[in-house]
Amino acid sequence: MTPAVTFDIVASDGQARAGWLHTPHGTVATPLFAPVGTQATVKAVTPEQLEALGAGLLLANTYHLYLRPGDKTIAALGGLHRFMGWAHPLLTDSGGFQVFSLAERRQVDADGVTFRSHLDGSTHRLTPESAMAIQENLGADIVMALDECPPPSDRDYNEAALTRTHAWAERCLAAHRRHDQALFGIVQGGIFPDLRRRSAAAITNMGFPGIAIGGLSVGETKSEMYTILDGLAEVLPKDRPRYLMGVGTLEDFVEAVVRGVDLMDCVLPTRMARNHAALTPLGRLNLRNAAYAEDPRPIDPACGCYACRNFSRGYLRHLAVAGEILAATLLTIHNLSALMALAAGLRQAILDVRTQTFAAEFRASFQKHRPIEV
Amino acid sequence: MTPAVTFDIVASDGQARAGWLHTPHGTVATPLFAPVGTQATVKAVTPEQLEALGAGLLLANTYHLYLRPGDKTIAALGGLHRFMGWAHPLLTDSGGFQVFSLAERRQVDADGVTFRSHLDGSTHRLTPESAMAIQENLGADIVMALDECPPPSDRDYNEAALTRTHAWAERCLAAHRRHDQALFGIVQGGIFPDLRRRSAAAITNMGFPGIAIGGLSVGETKSEMYTILDGLAEVLPKDRPRYLMGVGTLEDFVEAVVRGVDLMDCVLPTRMARNHAALTPLGRLNLRNAAYAEDPRPIDPACGCYACRNFSRGYLRHLAVAGEILAATLLTIHNLSALMALAAGLRQAILDVRTQTFAAEFRASFQKHRPIEV
Repeated sequence: MTPAVTFDIVASDGQARAGWLHTPHGTVATPLFAPVGTQATVKAVTPEQLEALGAGLLLANTYHLYLRPGDKTIAALGGLHRFMGWAHPLLTDSGGFQVFSLAERRQVDADGVTFRSHLDGSTHRLTPESAMAIQENLGADIVMALDECPPPSDRDYNEAALTRTHAWAERCLAAHRRHDQALFGIVQGGIFPDLRRRSAAAITNMGFPGIAIGGLSVGETKSEMYTILDGLAEVLPKDRPRYLMGVGTLEDFVEAVVRGVDLMDCVLPTRMARNHAALTPLGRLNLRNAAYAEDPRPIDPACGCYACRNFSRGYLRHLAVAGEILAATLLTIHNLSALMALAAGLRQAILDVRTQTFAAEFRASFQKHRPIEV
Repeated sequence: MTPAVTFDIVASDGQARAGWLHTPHGTVATPLFAPVGTQATVKAVTPEQLEALGAGLLLANTYHLYLRPGDKTIAALGGLHRFMGWAHPLLTDSGGFQVFSLAERRQVDADGVTFRSHLDGSTHRLTPESAMAIQENLGADIVMALDECPPPSDRDYNEAALTRTHAWAERCLAAHRRHDQALFGIVQGGIFPDLRRRSAAAITNMGFPGIAIGGLSVGETKSEMYTILDGLAEVLPKDRPRYLMGVGTLEDFVEAVVRGVDLMDCVLPTRMARNHAALTPLGRLNLRNAAYAEDPRPIDPACGCYACRNFSRGYLRHLAVAGEILAATLLTIHNLSALMALAAGLRQAILDVRTQTFAAEFRASFQKHRPIEV
C-alpha cells in the first residue's frame, strides 16, 4: 500500500533540501511555509485569495476545532477540506501545544492531559488515542502525534516530559487507522542538545513518515534555537520531511531552511498583519506610522502580491487608522506572499547550489525588527 | 462639450426603466445597486472581490473622507479612484447626510452648517462651496449637491430646509468646476407630496444631469416612502437618471425600480453581513442560528456567488460564532451579489416587458424580516 504522504528530495545544498511533498490532496514544493487557519480559516482571507497568493498546505488547530464547532460537526459536514473550502493539502496539530499554552487548569498524567476550555471553562481530556480520533474526524492529510510542550529551559521537566511524549507517540502510532492520513512524530527536548538527540533517535526509530521539531520559538533565544536545529540536522533521517512547528519570521525561515528544515507554520505573518505590520525582505513596516500618510509606494516595491500591485502605503495607513477590515486582508495577503516568495527563492537557490550566498545576502539586507526607511 | 455623465434608456415598462449610465470611468447598466465604501473601502471585501461579484458603481462618503484621511491627502495620492484601487465609476455624497445624522452639535445657517467631528470633537464647517471643493479633490465621477436632511414628518422644518436645500443646490451648480465630474441635485421634502413636487420642479429646472431623491428610509413607513416615489415618478424628467439615496433592502429595491428609480445605494447589505444576516429572495437568514450548525446547504441554493458556490451554512455559522472575519467577507459577497442579481433580474424583466409579473412573484415569495425555513 502506498503511504498517504511521500517525500522526494530533488536537490540538496549543504543541509538545505528542495523537494516535493505528495499528499492525497496534491503535491507541494518544499521548502514550504504553511499559513495557519486556527479555526478552519486563515484569518481575514478567503481560500480563493490563498490560492492566488500561492499557498500550498494549510494548518488547522485540533484544540480549537474540537472545542468549536466540534470534530463530529466537521465530519458531518464532509470533513475539514470540504468544511473550509480547501481542496489542497491540510495538516492538523494534535492539540497538545494549545492545551499547554492556552487551556486553563491543565493536569498531566501518564495517560493524557485534563484541561479546561479557554472558551467556557468546561472540562475536557486529551489522550493520544482521542487526539488521533479527533484528527481522524477532521480528516487532514497530515496529522500530528500528541506531545507535551514544557518550558524550553527546565531540564528536569523536559526529561520527564520527553518520556511521556515518546510513550504517547507510540500510542498514537498504534491508534492511527486512516490510510489517507500520514502521522508525523514530534521531537522535543527543549534547549538541551542531548535530549534533542535522544528524542530524534526515539521518534525516528518509531518509523514516522515525517519528523516534526516542537518546542522551539517558545521563549528561548534565536541562538539557542539555531544550535538545536544545527544538532538535529545531523541526526535526523535525510529521506523524511522535517517540519519545524510554530516558526515563521522571514529571518527564522531562512535560518531553518539552511539547517535542513522543509516545512514551517506560524501565526506570526497573519497575526502581525492584523496589527498592521508588514513583513518585507528589508525589514518590518508599521503601516500605522504617520510617515506613510501620503506615501504613494506599495508596501514593498519588489513584491508582486495583490496588495503591492494595487495599493499605496498611504491607503493602507488610512485603512489601518480607520480600523477597516481591508487593512488586515491586504496585509495578510502581503505577509503570506512575502513568505511564499522567500520559500520560492530559497528553493531556487538550493536547486542552483547557492543557498549560502542567498542566505548571506538576505542577512545583509534584512533589518531585524526595525522599520525600513521611508 | 460632452457632459461627464450621460444616460441612455434602452427600455421602459410602466414607470420602470432599463438604461446605461455612461461615466468617465466606464458604463454601468441600470437598474443598479451601488455598494457603499464609507471610508474608501467597502467593508470586509477587496476591489477584486467587488469586480468578481459584478459591482459597477461604488459610493464613498465625503464627510468621512474629509475628516480622515482628508480630501487633500487623497488628492495627493492621485484621487479617490487610485487611492482605493477602483478603476470603475465612483460617486461621492455631499457630506450633508452624515453632518445631519452623525456629527455633534451642528448649527445650520443660511450659508452652511457648522459641526463637530464624531471622531475627535473638532469643529468644522461645510458650505455648498466647500462640499464641491472637497468632492473635486476626491474626484468621483458623480458628485452630489449639499442638502439639508430634516426629520421626514416635521412639516415646518421640511419647508424651511427646502428653501436652504434649493439655494444650496444653486450655489453648488455655480461652484462646480471639474468637467469630468457630473453634479446631481437632490429632491427633499420629507413625507409631504406637495413639498416633494415643489422640490422636484425646482431641482429639475436647475438643469442637473441627474436627480437624487434624499430624505427617505429615515424613519417614515414603507407605505409613506412608496407614496412619495409614486408621486415623483410622474413629475421627474424621464430622460435623466434617478437616484434613490440610502435605500437597499431587496424589497425596497424592487418597489423603487417599479416606481422609476434607476440607482440606489445603501450600507444595509454590507452592515447586515457583518451582523451575520444573509439577504435572499426568500427572506433573511441569521447565520448564528444553531439550526444551521450542521446544515450542508449554501446560504441560498439558487445563488451563484462565491460564498454560495463554496461554503455551507454550517461553516458560515461556525465562522460567525467564532467571530472570524471571513464570516463578514463571505456574507458581504453574498448580500451584495443578491442585490446585483435582483438588479439584473429586474433589468431583464423591463427589457421583456414583464416587470409587474416579476415584482408580483418577488412579493409573493419574499418573507419580510423573517428567516426562511431551515
